[in-house]
Amino acid sequence: MVVSPEFLRRIAAVAAREALPRFRMPGLVANKVAGGFDPVTEADRETEKAIRALIRAEFPEHGILGEEFGAEGADARHVWVIDPIDGTRSFISGIPLWGTLVGLTDGGDAVAGMMAQPFIGELFYATGDGTHYEGPHGKARLATRTTETLSEAMLCTTTPAIFEPDRRSAFDRLERHVRLSRYGTDCYAYCMLAAGQIDLVVETGLQPYDIVALVPIIEQAGGVVTDWDGGPAERGGGIVAAANTTLHAKALAVLHSG
Amino acid sequence: MVVSPEFLRRIAAVAAREALPRFRMPGLVANKVAGGFDPVTEADRETEKAIRALIRAEFPEHGILGEEFGAEGADARHVWVIDPIDGTRSFISGIPLWGTLVGLTDGGDAVAGMMAQPFIGELFYATGDGTHYEGPHGKARLATRTTETLSEAMLCTTTPAIFEPDRRSAFDRLERHVRLSRYGTDCYAYCMLAAGQIDLVVETGLQPYDIVALVPIIEQAGGVVTDWDGGPAERGGGIVAAANTTLHAKALAVLHSG
Repeated sequence: MVVSPEFLRRIAAVAAREALPRFRMPGLVANKVAGGFDPVTEADRETEKAIRALIRAEFPEHGILGEEFGAEGADARHVWVIDPIDGTRSFISGIPLWGTLVGLTDGGDAVAGMMAQPFIGELFYATGDGTHYEGPHGKARLATRTTETLSEAMLCTTTPAIFEPDRRSAFDRLERHVRLSRYGTDCYAYCMLAAGQIDLVVETGLQPYDIVALVPIIEQAGGVVTDWDGGPAERGGGIVAAANTTLHAKALAVLHSG
Repeated sequence: MVVSPEFLRRIAAVAAREALPRFRMPGLVANKVAGGFDPVTEADRETEKAIRALIRAEFPEHGILGEEFGAEGADARHVWVIDPIDGTRSFISGIPLWGTLVGLTDGGDAVAGMMAQPFIGELFYATGDGTHYEGPHGKARLATRTTETLSEAMLCTTTPAIFEPDRRSAFDRLERHVRLSRYGTDCYAYCMLAAGQIDLVVETGLQPYDIVALVPIIEQAGGVVTDWDGGPAERGGGIVAAANTTLHAKALAVLHSG
């Protein structure tokens, strides 16, 4: 195991220190792209800086790829992939479903990852021996559900508005097959999939830093996560995460049946 | 003041005792309406029973209206209105945006209310002297935003799928005027409005127990909440909640401009 749970707890602690004082405070929103609405908060930048410093000190030979400050040493065997605040729109709305995502790749494959939600005080992580949870009401080892039929499945996505027209049709078709869908869940949905609370997460347009940290959390809990074509999820793009291989195959089949 | 913050804290404590052990546990979903998906958990029923017992002991002359067990003494001057777990779909998805809603009406007007989110450990309440917050990172007095233009406003709704066709067109029109919209927020959105984190919540098809507790929380923080025609919100139906009167008037105008 390259990384210890203790090191991930240290990352979660610095994320809490930087992000929490800025959560639910007014006046922190900036526009990354003029004309568009792509909020970047001071919390984003300060959190990523603090996490990069921790990683450089502990693993000087590793590369780092982060949302805010780009790549350094990205040709190393081990590369850390950071989204300091995934779910910035939750963050700026006061809604505690955002998270700090930090993943580790080995030759491009995600092998360890964490999601920390500092306001609630939750940490989801996987370092090679399963997926673990630490929260305000205790600790647990996580496992995905055994749901194998779409009509029993609960589906999450951040918003149907993220989908390009052809993928929107595919998503709408999948939604008609499932029992229940929920929106507005950001990175939190993937952790609820790992925790056996929901069955499917389908999104599109993700960056590597949106998903790399979540891949080990899902896989080491028994789930499956790929792109829309069944290929590796680590590169981002369209993502289909499911509680198990059977459900994953059924979801992909419906998405491609149009 | 008819009700003390201390009494509301006792309600929040029994809600936590009943609901929390059942949150994120499998096997608790039942179908209220055959064929439809209207989940009722054991947590719903046990939480409402415990809250009714507290109210009967403290205010035997008051009436009670609850989601699970209906009305008793509903012709009394003071009536308590209970939704033991608002956001049942959040609850069964493991997402901590559900809440226990308890409001008090005096001659039909909501005069006091609370929303408790026991997993995070948050309490939002108003008993006549403003809106107050108690959470894991401290206490605060809440105030709504001063946003007066729709193009700067952040809008929440549970899901666009709740709207009937004509109201869906009106909602879509409003959504095109605002800066940002977020879905999946249930009762939590109204509390974020009171907390000055968002600007608008627009929904439809609410029951009195979905909204009565939230009316004092919004109003005593400086916000405005009515039905889609500008009438009292206490009866439920279509709801428009806004950070201030100016924004509320502009939202209503857009909703009715089709």
